[in-house]
Amino acid sequence: MSSEEIAKAAKDAFEGSRLIPSSERVAALESIRHQLELQKAEILAANAEDLKAAQIEVDAGRMSDSMLKRLDLGRGDKWEAMLQGISDVAALPDPTGIVTYATELDDGLELYRVSCPIGVLLVIFEARPEVVVNIAALAIKSGNAAILKGGKESGATAALLARAISAGLARTALPARYIQAVQTRTEVAALLACDRYIDLVIPRGSNALVQSIQRSTRIPVMGHADGVCAVFLDAAADKATAVRVAVDSKIDYPSACNAAENLVVHEAVLHTVWPAVAAALLAAGVRLLCDPPSLAALSALAPPPANLATHLAPAAPSDYDTEHLALVLSVATVPSLAAGVQFINAHSSHHTDSIVTEDAAAASAFCRAVDSAGTFINASTRFADGFRYGFGTEVGISTGRIHARGPVGLEGLVIYKYMMKSAGPSGHIVGEFGSGKKQFKHQRINATAVPF
Amino acid sequence: MSSEEIAKAAKDAFEGSRLIPSSERVAALESIRHQLELQKAEILAANAEDLKAAQIEVDAGRMSDSMLKRLDLGRGDKWEAMLQGISDVAALPDPTGIVTYATELDDGLELYRVSCPIGVLLVIFEARPEVVVNIAALAIKSGNAAILKGGKESGATAALLARAISAGLARTALPARYIQAVQTRTEVAALLACDRYIDLVIPRGSNALVQSIQRSTRIPVMGHADGVCAVFLDAAADKATAVRVAVDSKIDYPSACNAAENLVVHEAVLHTVWPAVAAALLAAGVRLLCDPPSLAALSALAPPPANLATHLAPAAPSDYDTEHLALVLSVATVPSLAAGVQFINAHSSHHTDSIVTEDAAAASAFCRAVDSAGTFINASTRFADGFRYGFGTEVGISTGRIHARGPVGLEGLVIYKYMMKSAGPSGHIVGEFGSGKKQFKHQRINATAVPF
Repeated sequence: MSSEEIAKAAKDAFEGSRLIPSSERVAALESIRHQLELQKAEILAANAEDLKAAQIEVDAGRMSDSMLKRLDLGRGDKWEAMLQGISDVAALPDPTGIVTYATELDDGLELYRVSCPIGVLLVIFEARPEVVVNIAALAIKSGNAAILKGGKESGATAALLARAISAGLARTALPARYIQAVQTRTEVAALLACDRYIDLVIPRGSNALVQSIQRSTRIPVMGHADGVCAVFLDAAADKATAVRVAVDSKIDYPSACNAAENLVVHEAVLHTVWPAVAAALLAAGVRLLCDPPSLAALSALAPPPANLATHLAPAAPSDYDTEHLALVLSVATVPSLAAGVQFINAHSSHHTDSIVTEDAAAASAFCRAVDSAGTFINASTRFADGFRYGFGTEVGISTGRIHARGPVGLEGLVIYKYMMKSAGPSGHIVGEFGSGKKQFKHQRINATAVPF
Repeated sequence: MSSEEIAKAAKDAFEGSRLIPSSERVAALESIRHQLELQKAEILAANAEDLKAAQIEVDAGRMSDSMLKRLDLGRGDKWEAMLQGISDVAALPDPTGIVTYATELDDGLELYRVSCPIGVLLVIFEARPEVVVNIAALAIKSGNAAILKGGKESGATAALLARAISAGLARTALPARYIQAVQTRTEVAALLACDRYIDLVIPRGSNALVQSIQRSTRIPVMGHADGVCAVFLDAAADKATAVRVAVDSKIDYPSACNAAENLVVHEAVLHTVWPAVAAALLAAGVRLLCDPPSLAALSALAPPPANLATHLAPAAPSDYDTEHLALVLSVATVPSLAAGVQFINAHSSHHTDSIVTEDAAAASAFCRAVDSAGTFINASTRFADGFRYGFGTEVGISTGRIHARGPVGLEGLVIYKYMMKSAGPSGHIVGEFGSGKKQFKHQRINATAVPF
């Protein structure tokens, strides 16, 4: 089957699903969960094959050990968590059919803006095979058809997961081609040209993956770029808060995109708050790449903090634009709040940045002037997460500024349409409105669902 | 100044504007209106130059007469309407600072999702010079910086309008480079590569313009593609409604994107409703391009409707995918509602489609199964318009499915960010949450504005 046929089949499946009630989509999720349980042994056996092949790559130094770990579906409670995730998504409120604007244009002429699925999603991701199931659940719940492409490292596992999903769907009223999987990069390249059928591309992976996709398609891309997050220690920072927020932002999970990579220090606290923060970071094993003032402030300390000799180094300019994803933090000193904001706007990836301050005016200005998806006050950057925000699940974290920004829940997979109904005799026509004729009423209607 | 410097200046202007209160943006709009009034004679003289040059093009057959008319800023009440438009936009509610989600994550840890500008807009449009003013007003009101590029035909007028806007801005606290204009295609091509500084491209013009831009940039594009709208005459269509809705959808303003281009006839009404609709369309001077059944149904009529001989022709397959933008309508016959929906989904540009029916179940199914930005019941497709929808103004009509769909008001120019504040002792950190530790409360907060 050609990529264009796959894309057209997805669009047909999407259109064919529009009159199926959302309860059937919930039933489909439970059916898929059941099918996965039935095929557990078979899927884990395929996963073992993938792992064996990956181990060869690791031994040859061509793959990292952490990627190998991400491939392992049998590790810890991963399998159970994957299944529970399906039920969790099923239990979330339906994101479609919600009226967000309703107005009476004229007697008997009502307009409703109502949330609905986007259409066909093309989801491209690396490594972790359970993402197939995760994304399929989100797509089904939100009423979108999807085409999925995983990394070749998890090919055998992902193929079986996709087959189980299809088998689960086959027991429901949803079209069989609602969720499809493709295997090769060549197929993806051809799918990226199918803008007639595919409505949104969601790449989940490296910055390089996202940018290469953005460059090669006319289809909108909801991408997650890198996470260069900053913590700013304001002139009015409380020392204990600064220590807690800086350390948690850096060490809670260093390879996450919401971990801090830059620490920006107001020069007023260079000899008060900063040494305490530095000591705590060094004690936690963090390497500090410092500009001259922050370096000098530490070198003068007696006694020197633990690790000082081994974990302190001067920063290179490029360090402030680097996503370390490790126990490394770049430190810069600024003369004012305004300079701190400017520094962050210049170096942040506009993901999440946090200020530590007891000054309400500084906090308010920081939250408004820092142009990032998340601006926090006295809170760890690590809070930027769909589950922590209360969305129940997460499609990804968007650093784009269109459609969805920051942690994206199910509502990032819907758009809206306008439904209008004339109940007037012989319908409603535009020619009856205008100067000297009928005028629009524009009277708001209180409605949560479309009444027709 | 290079294109990259222009783009960077726009981003700096945007960032520099973030702490300026929205009341200053309203004052800027009034200042710009005042400046335009001061420069009226000068601007209309430049417009006369543009018109003289355009007349040469028209005489040489290289420009249409309708484009010449669109260039004329002194025609009718166009100048006054342009000025009034600025005041109308100024009077609209501020689309920024609105809280759409607020939740308490833990005691003293509050999260707010609040609407905010997107950043830097690049707006590319053809012909009509007043669009410079129109778009500048929308950008300023919504807090976005903008770079504007008009058609070369209105170059002299647009340059003076842009200068007046800058002069108006100079009397306010907003950065001088908040609104910039560029003149050449080379500059636009270079700007489309500045994805570091430009956040959204809005092309207003032909389908070809939109597609060529989508192909040449990584920046998201909010495009308005073509409008191939359909009216569907259902088996349960009322004859008088069918006549009124079909005629209004076609003839009220044939060159608008929300005019109907396809009429889809359920075969059950081929000999009842369709002849009356055809007679009314022919009487209004509409040429009908018909499939064999709809053609046969008319040929058999005695007496034949007016214009039948001159205004009836067989349809070619491509006619159903054509935006006629003239008094021409393509007609197709289908055997069922489901076939009608399928036909429309295959040929519509997903802009606006309307069903004529007295059958509530058919109407409901049509509205949900037709995958367009607007799905109407017994109402003219011409209602699809930002002013008619009650938005006060219109950025454009989007046939995309991301961010904004259908007529786009000011809210299409905003996105949101998340602000979080810890009021707990020593701030909030993620390491304190998890299994065996603190749990998230996720208690909804009722708030319309951020309280800090």
